[in-house]
Amino acid sequence: MKANGTDLTTASGVYVIAATPFHDDGRIDEKSTDSMVDFYRACGADGLTILGVMGEAPKLAAEESVAISKQIIKRAGPSMPVIVGVSAPGFAAMRSLARTVMDAGAAGVMIAPPNTLRTDDQIVGYYKQAVDAIGDDVPFCIQDFPITFSVVMSPKVIRSIIQELPSCVMLKHEDWPGLEKISTLRGFEADGSMRHVSILCGNGGLFLDFECERGADGAMTGYAFPDMLVDVVRLQKAGKRDAAHDLFDAHLPLIRYEQQPGAGLAVRKYLLKKRGVIASDAQRKPSAPLSAKARAEVDYLFDRLSKLDARAKAA
Amino acid sequence: MKANGTDLTTASGVYVIAATPFHDDGRIDEKSTDSMVDFYRACGADGLTILGVMGEAPKLAAEESVAISKQIIKRAGPSMPVIVGVSAPGFAAMRSLARTVMDAGAAGVMIAPPNTLRTDDQIVGYYKQAVDAIGDDVPFCIQDFPITFSVVMSPKVIRSIIQELPSCVMLKHEDWPGLEKISTLRGFEADGSMRHVSILCGNGGLFLDFECERGADGAMTGYAFPDMLVDVVRLQKAGKRDAAHDLFDAHLPLIRYEQQPGAGLAVRKYLLKKRGVIASDAQRKPSAPLSAKARAEVDYLFDRLSKLDARAKAA
Amino acid sequence: MKANGTDLTTASGVYVIAATPFHDDGRIDEKSTDSMVDFYRACGADGLTILGVMGEAPKLAAEESVAISKQIIKRAGPSMPVIVGVSAPGFAAMRSLARTVMDAGAAGVMIAPPNTLRTDDQIVGYYKQAVDAIGDDVPFCIQDFPITFSVVMSPKVIRSIIQELPSCVMLKHEDWPGLEKISTLRGFEADGSMRHVSILCGNGGLFLDFECERGADGAMTGYAFPDMLVDVVRLQKAGKRDAAHDLFDAHLPLIRYEQQPGAGLAVRKYLLKKRGVIASDAQRKPSAPLSAKARAEVDYLFDRLSKLDARAKAA
Amino acid sequence: MKANGTDLTTASGVYVIAATPFHDDGRIDEKSTDSMVDFYRACGADGLTILGVMGEAPKLAAEESVAISKQIIKRAGPSMPVIVGVSAPGFAAMRSLARTVMDAGAAGVMIAPPNTLRTDDQIVGYYKQAVDAIGDDVPFCIQDFPITFSVVMSPKVIRSIIQELPSCVMLKHEDWPGLEKISTLRGFEADGSMRHVSILCGNGGLFLDFECERGADGAMTGYAFPDMLVDVVRLQKAGKRDAAHDLFDAHLPLIRYEQQPGAGLAVRKYLLKKRGVIASDAQRKPSAPLSAKARAEVDYLFDRLSKLDARAKAA
Repeated sequence: MKANGTDLTTASGVYVIAATPFHDDGRIDEKSTDSMVDFYRACGADGLTILGVMGEAPKLAAEESVAISKQIIKRAGPSMPVIVGVSAPGFAAMRSLARTVMDAGAAGVMIAPPNTLRTDDQIVGYYKQAVDAIGDDVPFCIQDFPITFSVVMSPKVIRSIIQELPSCVMLKHEDWPGLEKISTLRGFEADGSMRHVSILCGNGGLFLDFECERGADGAMTGYAFPDMLVDVVRLQKAGKRDAAHDLFDAHLPLIRYEQQPGAGLAVRKYLLKKRGVIASDAQRKPSAPLSAKARAEVDYLFDRLSKLDARAKAA
Repeated sequence: MKANGTDLTTASGVYVIAATPFHDDGRIDEKSTDSMVDFYRACGADGLTILGVMGEAPKLAAEESVAISKQIIKRAGPSMPVIVGVSAPGFAAMRSLARTVMDAGAAGVMIAPPNTLRTDDQIVGYYKQAVDAIGDDVPFCIQDFPITFSVVMSPKVIRSIIQELPSCVMLKHEDWPGLEKISTLRGFEADGSMRHVSILCGNGGLFLDFECERGADGAMTGYAFPDMLVDVVRLQKAGKRDAAHDLFDAHLPLIRYEQQPGAGLAVRKYLLKKRGVIASDAQRKPSAPLSAKARAEVDYLFDRLSKLDARAKAA
Repeated sequence: MKANGTDLTTASGVYVIAATPFHDDGRIDEKSTDSMVDFYRACGADGLTILGVMGEAPKLAAEESVAISKQIIKRAGPSMPVIVGVSAPGFAAMRSLARTVMDAGAAGVMIAPPNTLRTDDQIVGYYKQAVDAIGDDVPFCIQDFPITFSVVMSPKVIRSIIQELPSCVMLKHEDWPGLEKISTLRGFEADGSMRHVSILCGNGGLFLDFECERGADGAMTGYAFPDMLVDVVRLQKAGKRDAAHDLFDAHLPLIRYEQQPGAGLAVRKYLLKKRGVIASDAQRKPSAPLSAKARAEVDYLFDRLSKLDARAKAA
Repeated sequence: MKANGTDLTTASGVYVIAATPFHDDGRIDEKSTDSMVDFYRACGADGLTILGVMGEAPKLAAEESVAISKQIIKRAGPSMPVIVGVSAPGFAAMRSLARTVMDAGAAGVMIAPPNTLRTDDQIVGYYKQAVDAIGDDVPFCIQDFPITFSVVMSPKVIRSIIQELPSCVMLKHEDWPGLEKISTLRGFEADGSMRHVSILCGNGGLFLDFECERGADGAMTGYAFPDMLVDVVRLQKAGKRDAAHDLFDAHLPLIRYEQQPGAGLAVRKYLLKKRGVIASDAQRKPSAPLSAKARAEVDYLFDRLSKLDARAKAA
């Protein structure tokens, strides 16, 4: 299923979860938005995912969501497909945003389940209603992130959604633990009970090393070093397992530090600012700013990483 | 604190939680909206609360929320103050709606806590940030509804919000069990540790008989017989306890039936349609329509109520 | 499936959820335990269910649970079958209690799901493991009580448990809303996809009037007037619908008052003491005692009920 | 406050969360229990904590809990104090186990909050009732583990417990994110508003590197390489920051792998078996066994760690 020239079912590599850059006073920083998109491209990103949790989507007014989506889709251009998070408390808002961003050139949308869903039938039913709302011509990605959304989707539930809804093209996998789930889903494909969709992994990248080995197609996360994510996925695809793990392990202390619920976004924006990608690390409220101690800890981990990197290059 | 001519801190009686009338195809039914407002006025409502959970607020697009708010505020006029629910996933959307409806003549706004809040400090902190966002010139009502929002506010927490935020003018009380909470809050007033705010009770009216006796100022709920709510509050204020309970008890089988989580709105809209208030009982998805059996059960309870009523009038 | 002479799959009428009587100092009151069992028999109870949530089961030491089970099973005798709650944090404790009470003459056991279960497969899997633990010769009753256990079982999940586990003989139904669930389950029986089990309803009896009409076999709750529950079920079976509702509605104000989460047990024990059934209304900690105001409210409702009752008898 | 010769308020270093070794058929393996205790001692453990979540405590029958506690306390001897988890659904069972293990020589007990607690007052109130139940002569450790228990304790709540209950001697810190919490609590000590208690960190050790720097006294976790935990804490105390991080980072890929909710215990027991500490990695049900792929992944990480270790020793 193609939309705006892209077939996401075969997507692989790294779709970066884009931050939303703000000025210190909370206004959206359009200039940093462009430089950020350029940075992601330079890192080798295969695509972008915007308006996710880590993009502070719920903190944007409706017209801001539309504006930043249009800007990023335009800047990214046809070579870097953009998926837009359209999760909303109701289907009217979801439809409105989905239709608008698809008209603007998005490759698809991402939908997270509302945290009231519990049973298998409720979850599958919700995605059916969502497709009714946005239209079955809009490719969508399931976001499976139980620790944040409190909705647990078994592999069977994901299979039902994929089999019953042809416009489902991708799974953003961020269950924890989640390695067996990837194996089970790829097993469904192997036994013919499920068609292929792209599986990209989030969760801050914390298990990316093994997720690739289990059958994931890559990463969909916003860790401040997308270049590393790109390299790890590339090395794994090339069969260079030890090299992939060596690179990944060097980043793991920082990945782990960034992957703290609630606190992580401050780390990520601080690092993006430190790397010159965005002008300010301001978040909109509610937010948890970095303490001086935390900032020093991030600096320490950054320095250790730089030294390792220098040593690796020297070797 | 007055806004648009109304001081909600002294509000009492019944503020009806207004439904949002739709056509069968899901479009907002403006004509029924007007007739519904007229019906609430004829029932003796002291005010209205719109865009609550039972008003299907999350299912409306941003522009629809604005349009229906303006229509209802205008139709209600200065004699029937309107409170508008502005709960939103983020403060930008909350501010935008709050400023718009206040400009349109609303008496205040209602804010429910997001279901991620757990500790006392988190809850108080959230309301402070909300006031920062909407402005401290906007009177607001706390919605305390743990069974739906999963946020438990102790009486101390509610006191902190009231004491620290002068623009807090009202509590929509719908904790369950909740009678002791009302007594405790009125005790805080009596011992001078908390200023007075209006307490209106929701929860479908299930404990309205005793809530009035504990110190509540009235009801804020959308039970399909607001006329009864008005009478019960009036009888209680007049000290006619037995008469208040007699009237309330006659309605209790139906109140209980309407107060089923998720299923209740279908009952309420069916009854409003049956009473000629709205043209269609359609809900927007996701929704749980009444089964044939459930409809027959509501009819049965309605008939029993009518007979009781006829007997009471004959006596 | 019979155990100790009873086939619970065909059970109907009222299985009273027995309280656990304590002395004021917290020791178990054996004398009141016997008088309570005699009272339930005199009320016309068809069976008893002990060591449930409202029996303060988690507050008993292991040896106390065994002792009171043996006493009640003996006092109840073969004409009043006893089901024993054996829910436990682990299977070793569950097995130990289950085997002991079955040896002592229980008719079956009741098992609630632990609140960590989310997906359909997890729930069915848990009941399979529980049967592995206690033995497939022990008849068991599923307790479906989402508001307390946070586990949502769809009708399909309940059917899977019943179909896959022959020792499942009964459902304690206390979902809310729950009327459609009863209809759906009885529909599964009608279409041949599920075998018959007994369905008895809890939830404090709040919907007993309609639950009987939907296909439930009766009640399993501990409302302080089990005689009324017995009469309502009997009237419904005899097709005397209006009389059943008249009787039920007279009790509804008190049923509703008793059915407050957490606070309800104090009401129930206070009423049982007031009716002379138990010597003390003491609960073990943690507990929420009745305030003076609440006690007066219960007295008021009790008096109104007595007057209605007197009037009904005079008529 | 001393009990059985130990003052836990000044405890530091590593208290290992002990596994419970089973035979393949599920019986407790006493021989492996002894060898495991000896292994922990050889690793340099300062104490042990038994009957925790990762000790499969809820899966033991009451008499098994007592038996294994007595065995481990005896084997550990006076030089390695033992803390026993006594969390229970009710206070009767909690008191019974607490008194028994203290009589057997335990240094204290650990109490986790039940997952129904929400408000600050509820949490503090629960610990007061727990102390009433077990006696104020029993030193206790608070377990603060929101991701598992769903109870969020703010620093103020922890301070209230510590200040109001003199028998509180220790905090098992495993909030996530949790670094700021340690700083805040040590800040309370510095400003004189809270007395000193020992803070040992769990959470699988995932942030031990920085927790020590924030003011924690060490670790309380059961990672399969307690020798590493001991060394990291020792290096940090000696001010050898870089060396501590180097050692920690080498283990982080495996720490992260072991710290998967639910799946982690299988990894830990597999590693303990691989290291020759216990004879079988069997868990009691419900359990999630390692898949062949997962086992191979653990082996891979283990091998990488061994190579790093060999290289470090060679250097």
